[in-house]
Amino acid sequence: MQLAMTGDKILALDELESVYFDRGIYFGDGVYEVVRSYNGKIFALEEHLSRFADSLSAISITGIDIGQIRSRIYRAFDAAGISNAKIYFHITRGSALRDHIWNDNPEPNFFMTITELANFTNEKKHGIAVSIFPDWRWKKCDIKSLNLLPNVLARNDAAKKGCSEVVFVDEAGLITEGAGSSFLAIVDQTLRTAPLSANILPSITRKFAIKAAKNIGLQIAEKSLTTQQAAHANELFIAVTTKDIIPVVKFDGNLIGNGKPGKYTKLLIEQFRSFIL
Amino acid sequence: MQLAMTGDKILALDELESVYFDRGIYFGDGVYEVVRSYNGKIFALEEHLSRFADSLSAISITGIDIGQIRSRIYRAFDAAGISNAKIYFHITRGSALRDHIWNDNPEPNFFMTITELANFTNEKKHGIAVSIFPDWRWKKCDIKSLNLLPNVLARNDAAKKGCSEVVFVDEAGLITEGAGSSFLAIVDQTLRTAPLSANILPSITRKFAIKAAKNIGLQIAEKSLTTQQAAHANELFIAVTTKDIIPVVKFDGNLIGNGKPGKYTKLLIEQFRSFIL
Repeated sequence: MQLAMTGDKILALDELESVYFDRGIYFGDGVYEVVRSYNGKIFALEEHLSRFADSLSAISITGIDIGQIRSRIYRAFDAAGISNAKIYFHITRGSALRDHIWNDNPEPNFFMTITELANFTNEKKHGIAVSIFPDWRWKKCDIKSLNLLPNVLARNDAAKKGCSEVVFVDEAGLITEGAGSSFLAIVDQTLRTAPLSANILPSITRKFAIKAAKNIGLQIAEKSLTTQQAAHANELFIAVTTKDIIPVVKFDGNLIGNGKPGKYTKLLIEQFRSFIL
Repeated sequence: MQLAMTGDKILALDELESVYFDRGIYFGDGVYEVVRSYNGKIFALEEHLSRFADSLSAISITGIDIGQIRSRIYRAFDAAGISNAKIYFHITRGSALRDHIWNDNPEPNFFMTITELANFTNEKKHGIAVSIFPDWRWKKCDIKSLNLLPNVLARNDAAKKGCSEVVFVDEAGLITEGAGSSFLAIVDQTLRTAPLSANILPSITRKFAIKAAKNIGLQIAEKSLTTQQAAHANELFIAVTTKDIIPVVKFDGNLIGNGKPGKYTKLLIEQFRSFIL
């Protein structure tokens, strides 16, 4: 008889709930998004849903009604009643006996959590330290997939070094992006960050950070930085949905500027605030 | 209130079973093995357990008692009573609220299935067609992790082309390995396959194939092949736990030899049979 075992418990294969056969767990065969609300209002939901649709399409998960996802988000968000909420959701290709090929076209699985966000006043005020890690990730990080083990390993390495975030450095010595954020520098009067490519997530917060930078009169250069260039930048910051803009005051052990959040970064944080009103 | 949603159902976060919060699904934060039995006897279990221990260690999942895993496997295998069984098992870092960092050290989750294997007489007799796909995988494929989305995408592309397996080609134009197998060629009297490196799984069936090749007097060259070299090899085959050695008679649309399994490959299949007695 075909069997399954979870922990020490043996069961007939067909006694087991379908969640155990989720292709998300077997293969990371799914995509996700993280959205947040500010003061009871979800920010940039349409941009996130549009990127989610792109991710689904890129891995050929078909037949998803984005309108249904939107209404599920609103329904659960309203039910939760959390004003500063983190909304995480993913869709996997579904549950099936383990097989790389999805012959049987299982029904996709939708999963969401709505949790309360901390405020990040301290990080915004004092900045964070960031470490570096080799970019071991797969080559299609423009797809927001569930294959995140390199991010997990890099983040844990960062935590050991007392850093809150880590940026990936590719084989050419160029910084791609953070394990959970975009990475941006200010050099003289220019905002500099890696260009969007197959290995950079088209970050929504990055897009708003660029908009904010234009608003305060900075030039924009989408050109990757070396670690040396980052260490010598006037200012550094990360951009991430849950925290928007967070100053980086230490990079790979080097103090940035005077070790305090830079003047332009502070202006960008203010600008960003105007977007969410 | 913090909420979760699965499909259309809203629940309080703490009402949901822990399997929904498995780090395996959030991040692919786990490692796996596939073992098989021939005629009621598990083949090369110790080699698989040893590689499993290496994979666990490589991603810092600690405190796993391999002896306990071994006894679970025997217990479930005996209970299943399937003589040609496929034994799949994985361990993930455990279940926790989604956070890259595993601060709270969750209890690892063990999961196993024991299913019946087909016999692969037809594939062994007539060989299979293999396609190629860019190697989009992460850079640590020596770790048998749950981050397998590129394998899924490549396999599905192969299926569309009528191929049973697909081999990855890196940016230098070299073949690394199959999406679910090792890839080997016979050129004159030499067995040729990519050397073990950070991006090649130390395949146990590959090791036995090399042993078999030595037994029949072939030279061994662990040197990567270009797709051109593969297309012009005398013989090609894949090595995979569930099927051991399967001849490849078509590669990226090119017939190999006369389009039938090669003489050395047939000898290797016979040799392999002697290992499993």
